[in-house]
Amino acid sequence: LIPLSFLWDGARLLFATPAASPTIRNLQANGNVRLALGTTRDVVLIEGTADVIGLDAIAAETGDAFAAKAGFDPRRPSSPFVYFWVHPLRVQAWREENELAGRDLMRGGQWIVSD
Amino acid sequence: LIPLSFLWDGARLLFATPAASPTIRNLQANGNVRLALGTTRDVVLIEGTADVIGLDAIAAETGDAFAAKAGFDPRRPSSPFVYFWVHPLRVQAWREENELAGRDLMRGGQWIVSD
Repeated sequence: LIPLSFLWDGARLLFATPAASPTIRNLQANGNVRLALGTTRDVVLIEGTADVIGLDAIAAETGDAFAAKAGFDPRRPSSPFVYFWVHPLRVQAWREENELAGRDLMRGGQWIVSD
Repeated sequence: LIPLSFLWDGARLLFATPAASPTIRNLQANGNVRLALGTTRDVVLIEGTADVIGLDAIAAETGDAFAAKAGFDPRRPSSPFVYFWVHPLRVQAWREENELAGRDLMRGGQWIVSD
C-alpha cells in the first residue's frame, strides 16, 4: 500500500517507482495489483495486472504526459526508476451505500457501462 | 484494500464492517493492518495491529462518536457488523519528495515527534 501518481491513457494506468522498491519486487513476483483512487466516500477500486518496463520502453510522448501529470520525470541519467502499466480487469466505483448495488463498472477486462 | 470511515480517539482508530467480510476474515487470520489516509500528495500511512470486537463491547459514548463521524451506526438489531480497533505501531506522513526524510512520526508504537 503506497501512494503513487499515475497517468491514465484511456485503457491503462502508468506509474513509475524505484526498481529496487518493495512495490516492484512484489509486482515481479506477482503481477496482480489493487488500486484505490479518490476518497472513502467517492472511491474507485481497480484490480488488474502490472507489466514492469524500463525507462527506455515508453513512447516519448507518453513519458512527457506522465511527467506533466505526475510532477516529476523519471527519465534522467542514472535514474533508479522503472515504469509499470496496470491493465484493469475489474473496476468498481461508488459514493455511499446506496450506490453499492451498481458499483461494478468493469468485469473480466470488459466495461459493463457506457461512457 | 477497502475504503472505510474511522474514529480517532487520540491513540487508536475505530472501524466497523460486516463480520462476514474478507476484511474481518483477514484480520482474524493475521491482525496486521496497513492504512492510508489523505491524498497521494499529503498522505498518512499507518501500520498496526487490529482487535476485532463485538458491537456490545464498545462504550456507549464511543459508539455515539463513531456514528457521528462515520455517518452510520452499526449498533442496531440483527446488525451483521463488528467493530475493530487499530493500534498504530508505525506512522508516516509526507507531502512531496522533500518531506520523505522526516516522514516517520511513530516507530514501535512510540511517537518520535511532539504534538
